[in-house]
Amino acid sequence: MSKVAFLLANDFEDSEMQVPYDEVKKAGHDVEIIGLKAGETLKGKGGKASYTSDKAISEVSASDYDAVVIPGGSSPENLRTDANILKFVTEINSAKKPIAAICHGPQILASADLLKGRTITSYPPLKDDMVNAGAEFKDHEAVVDGNYITSRTPADEPAFVRELLKVI
Amino acid sequence: MSKVAFLLANDFEDSEMQVPYDEVKKAGHDVEIIGLKAGETLKGKGGKASYTSDKAISEVSASDYDAVVIPGGSSPENLRTDANILKFVTEINSAKKPIAAICHGPQILASADLLKGRTITSYPPLKDDMVNAGAEFKDHEAVVDGNYITSRTPADEPAFVRELLKVI
Repeated sequence: MSKVAFLLANDFEDSEMQVPYDEVKKAGHDVEIIGLKAGETLKGKGGKASYTSDKAISEVSASDYDAVVIPGGSSPENLRTDANILKFVTEINSAKKPIAAICHGPQILASADLLKGRTITSYPPLKDDMVNAGAEFKDHEAVVDGNYITSRTPADEPAFVRELLKVI
Repeated sequence: MSKVAFLLANDFEDSEMQVPYDEVKKAGHDVEIIGLKAGETLKGKGGKASYTSDKAISEVSASDYDAVVIPGGSSPENLRTDANILKFVTEINSAKKPIAAICHGPQILASADLLKGRTITSYPPLKDDMVNAGAEFKDHEAVVDGNYITSRTPADEPAFVRELLKVI
Protein backbone atom coordinates (compact mmCIF):
# COMPACT_ATOMS: atom_id res chain seq x y z
CA MET A 1 0.00 0.00 0.00
CA SER A 2 1.15 3.53 -0.80
CA LYS A 3 1.23 6.77 1.14
CA VAL A 4 -0.35 9.47 -1.00
CA ALA A 5 -0.07 13.24 -0.45
CA PHE A 6 -2.94 15.49 -1.54
CA LEU A 7 -1.79 19.10 -2.05
CA LEU A 8 -4.67 21.38 -1.08
CA ALA A 9 -5.53 25.04 -0.53
CA ASN A 10 -8.79 26.96 -0.39
CA ASP A 11 -11.16 27.12 -3.37
CA PHE A 12 -10.30 23.66 -4.68
CA GLU A 13 -12.72 22.13 -7.19
CA ASP A 14 -14.81 20.13 -4.73
CA SER A 15 -15.19 16.80 -6.53
CA GLU A 16 -11.64 16.81 -7.87
CA MET A 17 -10.52 16.44 -4.27
CA GLN A 18 -13.39 14.30 -2.98
CA VAL A 19 -13.43 11.62 -5.66
CA PRO A 20 -9.70 10.78 -5.83
CA TYR A 21 -9.34 11.10 -2.04
CA ASP A 22 -12.22 8.72 -1.34
CA GLU A 23 -11.20 6.23 -4.03
CA VAL A 24 -7.53 6.12 -3.04
CA LYS A 25 -8.52 5.61 0.61
CA LYS A 26 -11.07 2.96 -0.33
CA ALA A 27 -8.35 1.09 -2.23
CA GLY A 28 -6.47 0.82 1.08
CA HIS A 29 -3.80 3.46 0.68
CA ASP A 30 -2.74 5.98 3.32
CA VAL A 31 -3.77 9.54 2.48
CA GLU A 32 -2.52 12.83 3.89
CA ILE A 33 -3.68 16.33 3.10
CA ILE A 34 -0.81 18.78 2.87
CA GLY A 35 -1.50 22.50 2.90
CA LEU A 36 0.41 25.71 3.45
CA LYS A 37 -0.41 25.35 7.17
CA ALA A 38 -1.28 22.33 9.33
CA GLY A 39 -4.75 21.98 10.86
CA GLU A 40 -6.33 24.55 8.56
CA THR A 41 -9.90 24.16 7.30
CA LEU A 42 -9.86 24.31 3.51
CA LYS A 43 -13.07 24.88 1.58
CA GLY A 44 -14.06 23.88 -1.91
CA LYS A 45 -15.09 26.65 -4.29
CA GLY A 46 -18.46 24.97 -4.79
CA GLY A 47 -19.15 24.94 -1.05
CA LYS A 48 -19.74 21.18 -1.14
CA ALA A 49 -16.58 19.92 0.51
CA SER A 50 -14.18 20.97 3.23
CA TYR A 51 -11.09 19.29 4.59
CA THR A 52 -8.59 19.95 7.35
CA SER A 53 -4.94 19.87 6.34
CA ASP A 54 -2.99 17.15 8.15
CA LYS A 55 0.43 18.74 7.72
CA ALA A 56 2.13 21.89 6.48
CA ILE A 57 4.27 21.63 3.37
CA SER A 58 7.17 23.12 5.36
CA GLU A 59 7.22 20.13 7.72
CA VAL A 60 7.04 17.22 5.25
CA SER A 61 9.62 15.51 3.09
CA ALA A 62 9.00 14.09 -0.37
CA SER A 63 10.78 10.92 0.75
CA ASP A 64 7.87 10.21 3.13
CA TYR A 65 5.38 9.78 0.26
CA ASP A 66 4.92 7.39 -2.64
CA ALA A 67 2.77 9.63 -4.82
CA VAL A 68 1.13 13.06 -4.96
CA VAL A 69 -2.32 14.16 -6.13
CA ILE A 70 -3.06 17.79 -7.09
CA PRO A 71 -6.78 18.68 -7.33
CA GLY A 72 -7.85 21.70 -9.41
CA GLY A 73 -10.00 24.79 -8.95
CA SER A 74 -8.20 27.86 -7.61
CA SER A 75 -6.26 25.73 -5.10
CA PRO A 76 -3.21 25.31 -7.37
CA GLU A 77 -3.04 29.10 -7.86
CA ASN A 78 -2.89 29.43 -4.08
CA LEU A 79 -0.07 26.87 -3.85
CA ARG A 80 2.09 27.54 -6.92
CA THR A 81 3.82 30.59 -5.42
CA ASP A 82 5.08 28.63 -2.39
CA ALA A 83 8.72 27.55 -2.68
CA ASN A 84 8.21 24.48 -0.45
CA ILE A 85 5.37 23.23 -2.66
CA LEU A 86 7.60 23.53 -5.73
CA LYS A 87 10.50 21.80 -3.97
CA PHE A 88 8.19 18.97 -2.86
CA VAL A 89 6.87 18.18 -6.35
CA THR A 90 10.36 18.54 -7.82
CA GLU A 91 11.71 15.93 -5.38
CA ILE A 92 8.72 13.63 -5.95
CA ASN A 93 9.43 13.86 -9.68
CA SER A 94 13.18 13.30 -9.28
CA ALA A 95 12.33 10.06 -7.46
CA LYS A 96 10.07 9.13 -10.41
CA LYS A 97 7.08 8.76 -8.08
CA PRO A 98 3.59 9.30 -9.54
CA ILE A 99 2.26 12.86 -9.81
CA ALA A 100 -1.46 13.05 -10.61
CA ALA A 101 -2.77 16.54 -11.46
CA ILE A 102 -6.25 17.41 -12.68
CA CYS A 103 -7.75 20.60 -14.18
CA HIS A 104 -5.68 23.55 -12.83
CA GLY A 105 -3.35 21.14 -10.98
CA PRO A 106 -0.63 21.25 -13.66
CA GLN A 107 -0.16 24.99 -12.92
CA ILE A 108 2.02 23.79 -10.04
CA LEU A 109 4.12 21.70 -12.43
CA ALA A 110 4.49 24.75 -14.69
CA SER A 111 5.74 26.87 -11.80
CA ALA A 112 8.11 24.10 -10.69
CA ASP A 113 9.45 24.02 -14.27
CA LEU A 114 8.57 20.34 -14.56
CA LEU A 115 6.75 20.41 -17.90
CA LYS A 116 9.57 20.70 -20.43
CA GLY A 117 9.34 17.75 -22.84
CA ARG A 118 6.40 16.19 -20.97
CA THR A 119 3.07 15.25 -22.52
CA ILE A 120 0.10 16.34 -20.43
CA THR A 121 -3.44 17.64 -20.41
CA SER A 122 -5.11 20.20 -18.11
CA TYR A 123 -8.21 22.36 -17.97
CA PRO A 124 -8.31 23.17 -21.71
CA PRO A 125 -8.22 27.00 -21.40
CA LEU A 126 -4.79 26.61 -19.78
CA LYS A 127 -3.39 24.92 -22.89
CA ASP A 128 -1.33 27.94 -24.01
CA ASP A 129 0.24 28.28 -20.54
CA MET A 130 1.13 24.59 -20.53
CA VAL A 131 2.64 24.74 -24.03
CA ASN A 132 4.56 27.90 -23.10
CA ALA A 133 5.93 25.98 -20.09
CA GLY A 134 7.32 23.38 -22.49
CA ALA A 135 4.61 20.70 -22.45
CA GLU A 136 3.06 18.85 -25.34
CA PHE A 137 -0.70 19.19 -24.77
CA LYS A 138 -3.27 16.46 -25.49
CA ASP A 139 -7.01 17.00 -25.14
CA HIS A 140 -7.75 13.57 -23.59
CA GLU A 141 -9.58 12.47 -20.44
CA ALA A 142 -6.37 11.11 -18.94
CA VAL A 143 -2.84 11.50 -20.27
CA VAL A 144 -0.15 9.24 -18.82
CA ASP A 145 3.48 10.14 -19.52
CA GLY A 146 5.95 8.27 -17.34
CA ASN A 147 5.13 9.20 -13.75
CA TYR A 148 2.65 11.96 -14.75
CA ILE A 149 -1.11 11.41 -14.84
CA THR A 150 -3.12 14.46 -15.91
CA SER A 151 -6.79 15.11 -16.60
CA ARG A 152 -8.95 18.05 -17.68
CA THR A 153 -12.17 18.49 -15.67
CA PRO A 154 -14.46 16.82 -13.09
CA ALA A 155 -15.96 14.74 -15.93
CA ASP A 156 -12.57 13.03 -16.28
CA GLU A 157 -12.39 11.93 -12.64
CA PRO A 158 -13.15 8.23 -13.34
CA ALA A 159 -10.30 8.02 -15.89
CA PHE A 160 -8.01 10.04 -13.61
CA VAL A 161 -8.61 7.74 -10.64
CA ARG A 162 -8.38 4.60 -12.80
CA GLU A 163 -4.92 5.58 -14.09
CA LEU A 164 -3.76 6.66 -10.64
CA LEU A 165 -4.80 3.40 -8.99
CA LYS A 166 -2.87 1.45 -11.63
CA VAL A 167 0.45 2.89 -10.48
CA ILE A 168 0.20 3.25 -6.71
CA MET B 1 -14.55 60.96 -26.17
CA SER B 2 -13.57 57.35 -26.76
CA LYS B 3 -15.52 54.19 -27.49
CA VAL B 4 -14.36 51.52 -25.07
CA ALA B 5 -14.99 47.76 -25.41
CA PHE B 6 -15.25 45.65 -22.24
CA LEU B 7 -14.56 41.96 -22.97
CA LEU B 8 -16.73 39.91 -20.61
CA ALA B 9 -17.79 36.33 -19.89
CA ASN B 10 -19.32 34.62 -16.88
CA ASP B 11 -17.52 34.48 -13.55
CA PHE B 12 -15.77 37.82 -13.93
CA GLU B 13 -14.33 39.40 -10.78
CA ASP B 14 -17.26 41.63 -9.91
CA SER B 15 -15.56 44.88 -8.97
CA GLU B 16 -12.92 44.60 -11.72
CA MET B 17 -15.77 45.06 -14.18
CA GLN B 18 -17.94 47.42 -12.14
CA VAL B 19 -15.32 49.99 -11.15
CA PRO B 20 -13.65 50.58 -14.54
CA TYR B 21 -17.01 50.40 -16.36
CA ASP B 22 -18.64 52.99 -14.09
CA GLU B 23 -15.62 55.29 -14.06
CA VAL B 24 -15.09 55.21 -17.82
CA LYS B 25 -18.78 55.93 -18.37
CA LYS B 26 -18.74 58.69 -15.76
CA ALA B 27 -15.84 60.31 -17.59
CA GLY B 28 -18.12 60.62 -20.62
CA HIS B 29 -16.87 57.77 -22.81
CA ASP B 30 -19.04 55.32 -24.72
CA VAL B 31 -18.89 51.80 -23.30
CA GLU B 32 -19.91 48.51 -24.88
CA ILE B 33 -19.86 45.05 -23.38
CA ILE B 34 -18.68 42.42 -25.82
CA GLY B 35 -19.21 38.75 -25.05
CA LEU B 36 -19.16 35.47 -26.89
CA LYS B 37 -22.87 36.04 -27.61
CA ALA B 38 -25.01 39.20 -27.79
CA GLY B 39 -27.75 39.80 -25.23
CA GLU B 40 -26.41 37.26 -22.77
CA THR B 41 -26.64 37.81 -19.01
CA LEU B 42 -23.15 37.50 -17.55
CA LYS B 43 -22.68 37.04 -13.83
CA GLY B 44 -19.80 37.96 -11.57
CA LYS B 45 -18.19 35.16 -9.56
CA GLY B 46 -18.94 37.03 -6.33
CA GLY B 47 -22.65 37.23 -7.18
CA LYS B 48 -22.57 41.03 -6.75
CA ALA B 49 -22.77 42.16 -10.36
CA SER B 50 -24.38 41.07 -13.60
CA TYR B 51 -24.32 42.63 -17.05
CA THR B 52 -25.91 41.93 -20.41
CA SER B 53 -23.54 41.74 -23.36
CA ASP B 54 -24.26 44.41 -25.97
CA LYS B 55 -22.63 42.61 -28.87
CA ALA B 56 -21.04 39.30 -29.82
CA ILE B 57 -17.33 39.29 -30.56
CA SER B 58 -18.10 37.71 -33.94
CA GLU B 59 -20.05 40.81 -35.05
CA VAL B 60 -17.68 43.59 -34.02
CA SER B 61 -14.58 45.04 -35.57
CA ALA B 62 -11.55 46.37 -33.72
CA SER B 63 -11.68 49.47 -35.93
CA ASP B 64 -14.97 50.46 -34.22
CA TYR B 65 -13.28 50.91 -30.81
CA ASP B 66 -10.65 53.20 -29.35
CA ALA B 67 -9.63 51.00 -26.41
CA VAL B 68 -10.36 47.67 -24.72
CA VAL B 69 -10.71 46.74 -21.05
CA ILE B 70 -10.35 43.13 -19.87
CA PRO B 71 -11.64 42.46 -16.31
CA GLY B 72 -10.35 39.41 -14.41
CA GLY B 73 -11.80 36.49 -12.47
CA SER B 74 -12.53 33.39 -14.54
CA SER B 75 -13.94 35.50 -17.40
CA PRO B 76 -10.62 35.63 -19.32
CA GLU B 77 -10.36 31.82 -19.12
CA ASN B 78 -13.78 31.65 -20.74
CA LEU B 79 -12.72 34.03 -23.51
CA ARG B 80 -9.12 33.08 -24.27
CA THR B 81 -9.99 30.01 -26.32
CA ASP B 82 -12.16 32.02 -28.75
CA ALA B 83 -10.40 32.87 -32.04
CA ASN B 84 -12.45 36.05 -32.56
CA ILE B 85 -11.45 37.38 -29.13
CA LEU B 86 -7.78 36.80 -29.94
CA LYS B 87 -8.15 38.42 -33.38
CA PHE B 88 -9.89 41.44 -31.81
CA VAL B 89 -7.16 42.16 -29.25
CA THR B 90 -4.47 41.52 -31.86
CA GLU B 91 -6.01 44.15 -34.16
CA ILE B 92 -6.51 46.61 -31.29
CA ASN B 93 -2.83 46.18 -30.45
CA SER B 94 -1.70 46.51 -34.09
CA ALA B 95 -3.49 49.87 -34.15
CA LYS B 96 -1.60 50.80 -30.94
CA LYS B 97 -4.89 51.47 -29.13
CA PRO B 98 -4.97 51.09 -25.32
CA ILE B 99 -5.46 47.60 -23.87
CA ALA B 100 -6.19 47.61 -20.13
CA ALA B 101 -6.15 44.17 -18.47
CA ILE B 102 -6.45 43.46 -14.75
CA CYS B 103 -5.87 40.32 -12.65
CA HIS B 104 -6.47 37.31 -14.96
CA GLY B 105 -7.12 39.65 -17.93
CA PRO B 106 -3.58 39.26 -19.35
CA GLN B 107 -4.32 35.53 -19.93
CA ILE B 108 -6.04 36.70 -23.12
CA LEU B 109 -2.88 38.57 -24.18
CA ALA B 110 -0.87 35.41 -23.52
CA SER B 111 -3.17 33.32 -25.72
CA ALA B 112 -3.06 35.99 -28.45
CA ASP B 113 0.74 35.84 -28.26
CA LEU B 114 0.91 39.55 -27.50
CA LEU B 115 3.26 39.45 -24.50
CA LYS B 116 6.66 38.89 -26.09
CA GLY B 117 8.95 41.73 -25.05
CA ARG B 118 6.20 43.55 -23.16
CA THR B 119 6.37 44.64 -19.51
CA ILE B 120 3.22 43.82 -17.57
CA THR B 121 1.74 42.74 -14.28
CA SER B 122 -1.18 40.39 -13.55
CA TYR B 123 -2.66 38.43 -10.67
CA PRO B 124 0.68 37.48 -9.06
CA PRO B 125 0.18 33.66 -9.11
CA LEU B 126 0.08 33.90 -12.92
CA LYS B 127 3.57 35.38 -13.05
CA ASP B 128 5.21 32.20 -14.37
CA ASP B 129 2.63 31.90 -17.16
CA MET B 130 3.20 35.53 -18.14
CA VAL B 131 6.98 35.14 -18.14
CA ASN B 132 6.69 31.91 -20.14
CA ALA B 133 4.58 33.85 -22.66
CA GLY B 134 7.49 36.26 -23.10
CA ALA B 135 6.57 39.10 -20.73
CA GLU B 136 8.73 40.91 -18.24
CA PHE B 137 6.72 40.85 -15.00
CA LYS B 138 6.53 43.69 -12.47
CA ASP B 139 4.72 43.40 -9.16
CA HIS B 140 3.22 46.93 -9.23
CA GLU B 141 -0.33 48.28 -8.83
CA ALA B 142 -0.35 49.49 -12.43
CA VAL B 143 2.23 48.83 -15.13
CA VAL B 144 2.08 50.97 -18.25
CA ASP B 145 4.10 49.84 -21.27
CA GLY B 146 3.20 51.64 -24.48
CA ASN B 147 -0.49 50.91 -25.10
CA TYR B 148 -0.73 48.28 -22.31
CA ILE B 149 -2.07 49.04 -18.85
CA THR B 150 -2.06 46.09 -16.46
CA SER B 151 -2.92 45.63 -12.80
CA ARG B 152 -2.97 42.78 -10.27
CA THR B 153 -6.08 42.62 -8.09
CA PRO B 154 -9.25 44.54 -7.07
CA ALA B 155 -7.09 46.58 -4.66
CA ASP B 156 -5.33 48.07 -7.69
CA GLU B 157 -8.54 49.32 -9.34
CA PRO B 158 -7.96 53.02 -8.51
CA ALA B 159 -4.49 52.93 -10.13
CA PHE B 160 -5.80 50.89 -13.05
CA VAL B 161 -8.63 53.34 -13.77
CA ARG B 162 -6.36 56.34 -13.24
CA GLU B 163 -3.89 55.13 -15.88
CA LEU B 164 -6.66 54.12 -18.27
CA LEU B 165 -8.38 57.51 -18.08
CA LYS B 166 -5.07 59.22 -18.90
CA VAL B 167 -4.92 57.62 -22.33
CA ILE B 168 -8.51 57.44 -23.58
